[in-house]
Amino acid sequence: MIVTAKNSFGVMVNPLLTDLYQLTMAHSYWCAARHNVQATFDLYFRKAPFGGSYVLFGGLDECLQFLCNFKLMESQVSYISEQIPNCDTGFLDWLRGVDCSTVKIYAQQQGTPVFPNVPLMRVSGPLALVQLLETPLLNLVGYASLVMTNANRFRLAAGASATLLEFGVRRAQGPNGALTASKYCYLGGFDATSNVAAGEAFGIPLQGTQAHAYVSSFASLDDVPTDLTFSAGKAAATKFLIKSAWVRDRALKIRDCVHDGPSTSDSELAAFITYGCVYPMKFAALVDTYSTLQSGVPNFMCVALALMEVGHTAIGVRLDSGDLSALAGQVRKLFSDIAKRYAHVYQHKEEDVMKYIRKFKILVSDDLTVSRIADMRRKSVEIDAYGIGTHIVTCLEQPALGCVYKLSSVDGTERIKFSENPSKSSIPGMKAAFRVQREADDDVFDVLTLADEQAPKKGIDFLALDWESKNYVTIKVAHVVSLLNCVWNGAITVDVQTGPDALTQARAYVDKQVAALPQMCRYLDSGTRRIPLLVSTKLFDSYQNLRQNCISRFIDTDG
Amino acid sequence: MIVTAKNSFGVMVNPLLTDLYQLTMAHSYWCAARHNVQATFDLYFRKAPFGGSYVLFGGLDECLQFLCNFKLMESQVSYISEQIPNCDTGFLDWLRGVDCSTVKIYAQQQGTPVFPNVPLMRVSGPLALVQLLETPLLNLVGYASLVMTNANRFRLAAGASATLLEFGVRRAQGPNGALTASKYCYLGGFDATSNVAAGEAFGIPLQGTQAHAYVSSFASLDDVPTDLTFSAGKAAATKFLIKSAWVRDRALKIRDCVHDGPSTSDSELAAFITYGCVYPMKFAALVDTYSTLQSGVPNFMCVALALMEVGHTAIGVRLDSGDLSALAGQVRKLFSDIAKRYAHVYQHKEEDVMKYIRKFKILVSDDLTVSRIADMRRKSVEIDAYGIGTHIVTCLEQPALGCVYKLSSVDGTERIKFSENPSKSSIPGMKAAFRVQREADDDVFDVLTLADEQAPKKGIDFLALDWESKNYVTIKVAHVVSLLNCVWNGAITVDVQTGPDALTQARAYVDKQVAALPQMCRYLDSGTRRIPLLVSTKLFDSYQNLRQNCISRFIDTDG
Repeated sequence: MIVTAKNSFGVMVNPLLTDLYQLTMAHSYWCAARHNVQATFDLYFRKAPFGGSYVLFGGLDECLQFLCNFKLMESQVSYISEQIPNCDTGFLDWLRGVDCSTVKIYAQQQGTPVFPNVPLMRVSGPLALVQLLETPLLNLVGYASLVMTNANRFRLAAGASATLLEFGVRRAQGPNGALTASKYCYLGGFDATSNVAAGEAFGIPLQGTQAHAYVSSFASLDDVPTDLTFSAGKAAATKFLIKSAWVRDRALKIRDCVHDGPSTSDSELAAFITYGCVYPMKFAALVDTYSTLQSGVPNFMCVALALMEVGHTAIGVRLDSGDLSALAGQVRKLFSDIAKRYAHVYQHKEEDVMKYIRKFKILVSDDLTVSRIADMRRKSVEIDAYGIGTHIVTCLEQPALGCVYKLSSVDGTERIKFSENPSKSSIPGMKAAFRVQREADDDVFDVLTLADEQAPKKGIDFLALDWESKNYVTIKVAHVVSLLNCVWNGAITVDVQTGPDALTQARAYVDKQVAALPQMCRYLDSGTRRIPLLVSTKLFDSYQNLRQNCISRFIDTDG
Repeated sequence: MIVTAKNSFGVMVNPLLTDLYQLTMAHSYWCAARHNVQATFDLYFRKAPFGGSYVLFGGLDECLQFLCNFKLMESQVSYISEQIPNCDTGFLDWLRGVDCSTVKIYAQQQGTPVFPNVPLMRVSGPLALVQLLETPLLNLVGYASLVMTNANRFRLAAGASATLLEFGVRRAQGPNGALTASKYCYLGGFDATSNVAAGEAFGIPLQGTQAHAYVSSFASLDDVPTDLTFSAGKAAATKFLIKSAWVRDRALKIRDCVHDGPSTSDSELAAFITYGCVYPMKFAALVDTYSTLQSGVPNFMCVALALMEVGHTAIGVRLDSGDLSALAGQVRKLFSDIAKRYAHVYQHKEEDVMKYIRKFKILVSDDLTVSRIADMRRKSVEIDAYGIGTHIVTCLEQPALGCVYKLSSVDGTERIKFSENPSKSSIPGMKAAFRVQREADDDVFDVLTLADEQAPKKGIDFLALDWESKNYVTIKVAHVVSLLNCVWNGAITVDVQTGPDALTQARAYVDKQVAALPQMCRYLDSGTRRIPLLVSTKLFDSYQNLRQNCISRFIDTDG
């Protein structure tokens, strides 16, 4: 299943979104009459980001949409002809006609946790064409996978019951960086975004509170309107229409009774009253504009209690500065102190008021990282929700995944990207990949074979090499899942869906997949602890032969 | 002058690219009949990124294009109505009609080096509307400015004569992250990009070499075609058509004579011969697929010398792994050794061959950072060009600029964003900004005043406070430049240009502006050393009053 936007955001992803050298290489293949040789590339990564052990595969939706639209316009062909030195007209004709109808792609399901060196995608087709696809596919997969993986780490850090909100649109690399972030954060485990464009495009739930500017745009209590300007339409017909002048007077009276010390900020109170009257069932307040404990929380309580008296409900507060975990505890105590005093003065049943305020949520924001959240979670049980911006969208800990796209086969023969460092050498050949459970102990393995080999089969012993230790192992197979399945064969071969349901299903898949991983892979610092990678003996022989051939000739005498 | 793309890449930047709270706040302003109150926001940053002292202001082009297109579609209004609790129909009518014809924006010229706390942009208009603009303006300015500033640091590190190539398209946050990167890297001092889409859209020069996949796609010398398949068209009519079989035989003969030890890789040689024959005037080779010194460079030389014999020219090599500065020296020596041996065996004049090879360029790539380049420049004089990908587009050292958008004035009265930390408090009021030169010593200052004050004037003493020390200073003004000028008054008020000329001018402006800065600001680690910031006494009084008012009420008793 792929999930697409309700609206078209794919305009910029055209075949020109590639590196010049892809075109000069393609032209050179064409001139050498090698452009139609069948080639296969693997798209994979060598090391999981952020100190974790896996990557959640994202961006497949956008890759498939890109392949659908892969067609050069005449103006683009003309531009290319100017950029390639000595460009041949026959090549331009080839460019005019080329589309992705001759390409075949096997990929993991989007949202699957993938470990290093296992292909996310396997791309086959005419050499010149699949070469052109390298850059856009890396562009589309890299950030989507990175940000989904990062989101999932925030979820691991915050725990299943916390609310995670993505507030990063202003810190992304432009508009579609922000859209990609919002979509893949949601799939990776966030609950909502502030990004309205992403909400509209994908059906992601939206959330937000208010900004400091809202609070400081009010100068005094005179700025609270006597009555709100609801039009004669929708709102006037609802039960929500309440007199702001009444709430103002009531809040002021409550303030007189419940608050000691210097008065709270009138302008802040004016802002809260106005907001509370407009959103009486959704009143949440940003409480740190002047002073969280001296002004923000008392002002919030005055309005929240006034609203309670007319049957409405406040939601809670956002803390945006200070020692958030300590402050959360102090805020919770202040809720309680003010509620008690209020109940006493106004002769309300204390129990009723306490029941009301116990539902208040505390949302924290302010440059939150995975490790700060993990730390806050240890220190405080009072925080309900986290708003995360910069660190989720920039993936500051590691802002690029570093996926590679390596040639594994040309014209039916295996190719390797050689490196003296064995961990940087690629695994050759057109491959199949499986996640296999061993009968003896239910342990799970990733298995790579050549695509034309016999796949691991339930109940059968499978002989392979452990990629790490290079030791032979035999496992009796209890369960096999094929990881690489056909998603494109000249056209999309999987379901395409739009809207919130599709998104919810995709999100549930991620959740289930991550939960099914061995615990050792699910720590924030799991690092190299992974599902062991096994390769078939035939595949390993091919790797050894190709590698040995290079080593014997070039290694001993060179750097 | 603003520089726009030849093609429209702005489709996604619509008014929904904002945070939900901007809309809920706007709705609340509307309900309180405060939406049309005149407000002014400053867009600025508090600390320059990367340890430098300034930011090059980017993204203005995209902001102005966004303002031009700011108009909600009916489907978007309908979506908003579902997302705002208790949404009033009168507000929806307001949304249907709203555009940026009532907004006025003063901004610095794009490419100007800007120091902390001086506004990049000053945005005035109806409160609800300019509130909605916060998120998209921050989104569009943030990354563009960051990546231009980063590019400029790569230029500082590499020196004026080095060639800097941006190869980051695959590592950006999606397609328009990549386009923004390519554009603003070029403006910030890069020479070219590999991003073909950016080349087409903006007229940025393109460059590239080849990938490892190109080299490893060849299996043996049999893969060199006997003749190249140039069509009967363009290429056949040029002098470039050469027999690849001849070059192959010649290159093999040269290899026999000039190369000791185990043979170089035949498949690599086949790749180079093919590439060299297709691009005989632009032959550059990626030489580290097997072994830079044992195979890549000798193979490159065989083809380069064969091409020389038929009057063509090779360009040079790309090194993509190893100790690049050491390797560059070894490669240069190997060029020379092979050239000498070749001249001797083939009885060419050594001087002619040496003249040919001395022009070869060495391009290095492989995860280059500012500090690695600065280090390589110290260690080696042999490197001509740097190809930079991940570190330039992700701005890995600091992937978000952290611009803020703070309310400075409402209905003609000044507002402050208060913070206990003075460096985080905003500077209130609708302001003007100047870069002023002092007569006594030509020292340069940035000056902020209230917009309705007398501006600093040539020949006149100007009394102000130093923002850092809070001391009074009087400077006799020798020269004044107004930094904030009107760029939008209901419509664009500056020139709009397209194409390479516009880009070249914009690039030259950056260069000149940076060169004009005091040297103390132009180190990679200039940090807080900045052009001193002066504020007028009237502006300082306003700041002090607003701040003191908050401090006296909220500070002493609260953490």
